[in-house]
Amino acid sequence: MQLHELAGADPARLFSPFCWRVRMALAAKGFRAETLPWRFTDKAAIAPHGAEKVPVLLDGGRAIHESWAIAEYLEDTYPDRPSLFGGAAGREYARFVNAFADAVLLGGIARLIIADIHAVLAPQDQAYFRASREKRFGMTLEAVQADRETAVLGFRQALHPLRMVLRRQPFLGGAGPLHPDSIVFGCFQWARCTSPFRLLAADDPIEAWRQRMLDLHDGLARHVPAFD
Amino acid sequence: MQLHELAGADPARLFSPFCWRVRMALAAKGFRAETLPWRFTDKAAIAPHGAEKVPVLLDGGRAIHESWAIAEYLEDTYPDRPSLFGGAAGREYARFVNAFADAVLLGGIARLIIADIHAVLAPQDQAYFRASREKRFGMTLEAVQADRETAVLGFRQALHPLRMVLRRQPFLGGAGPLHPDSIVFGCFQWARCTSPFRLLAADDPIEAWRQRMLDLHDGLARHVPAFD
Repeated sequence: MQLHELAGADPARLFSPFCWRVRMALAAKGFRAETLPWRFTDKAAIAPHGAEKVPVLLDGGRAIHESWAIAEYLEDTYPDRPSLFGGAAGREYARFVNAFADAVLLGGIARLIIADIHAVLAPQDQAYFRASREKRFGMTLEAVQADRETAVLGFRQALHPLRMVLRRQPFLGGAGPLHPDSIVFGCFQWARCTSPFRLLAADDPIEAWRQRMLDLHDGLARHVPAFD
Repeated sequence: MQLHELAGADPARLFSPFCWRVRMALAAKGFRAETLPWRFTDKAAIAPHGAEKVPVLLDGGRAIHESWAIAEYLEDTYPDRPSLFGGAAGREYARFVNAFADAVLLGGIARLIIADIHAVLAPQDQAYFRASREKRFGMTLEAVQADRETAVLGFRQALHPLRMVLRRQPFLGGAGPLHPDSIVFGCFQWARCTSPFRLLAADDPIEAWRQRMLDLHDGLARHVPAFD
């Protein structure tokens, strides 16, 4: 397998939250894909697969894109390997957490680290990234994150559903991780790979869970170019 | 079975979001419990069961309290009946949605309808309710909900994870309902039973789902004293 993944100036700095959902899912299934580092401005590399964004997974002659579609593909194509979802209701769990992550976590984190992300990008991506994100936010990247020391408090409050679960059990999946853990973890790993800013208080149960996620699969997510 | 349930001045106005989680779970399991109407100030009625709040389910010689504990009790005691969770991963789904409902929905709804709730309470409950809730909010009940025409917009935004799922499938459980549906529905039913205020826009996919939930079990939740 090969995986087109978003990279920074350092091709080993793989930071996309969506790509991390897939990296963790691949590892949970016992796969390791070869990374094909990709940049925002490298549309031509994935256009033949019908994709405009990564992740794009190449498996034999097939190309699958969009992180949720890839998770379903892996689960349905390799049912004899460890399950990502734990059954039909567990697939709905992952679907809901995917929505929660997209609606609450990604936007919440982006406005805390957006200028830091810009700083680790490949030079050819920086102008595109600044222009598109400054248009979206209606202000400079630096202005978006300028109040982050106070804004992070509201972000931490929005994480409370995660905290309520993780203060009583090791993973969102229960005693062990399931795909909802990978989905949420991908958001935090995005921040860890791009920014020194601390999203979580040291005594937050979510931080203890994040450390457990960093330990999975022989430290797959820990031993990468990152800030903490 | 018997169920101690919170009631208003009208003993048929059963409005607690936690009791509705249990009512829907009982119906999903094919049970109907006899309602024992309870008021906030009626501590003595449930103290023998070690409970300070409802719901309290009486099943043979056993008393189970707290809505989540009751759901687990029903699932584990009656495994041959339709499943509330759909397996172990589905139980974790319900646990996460329970946390999401408690952290996001209950507080979000309370501040929109708190004075309306007061208005439907039994006279003996009203002084307790006003004093305890005004202490919690630091203002009068009327002041809490005074800006609700604008505050509801933020509430609707916080529902977005639900919307993302329900615009593509009929229930949080997928093609059919599971306990996560009952948990979220209980929050909306609490509002429907106490307040004429519209929480949802008419074209919101969550509203269409709410109507489907009201139709379940021969209209169990629709045909009760309520506002809409």
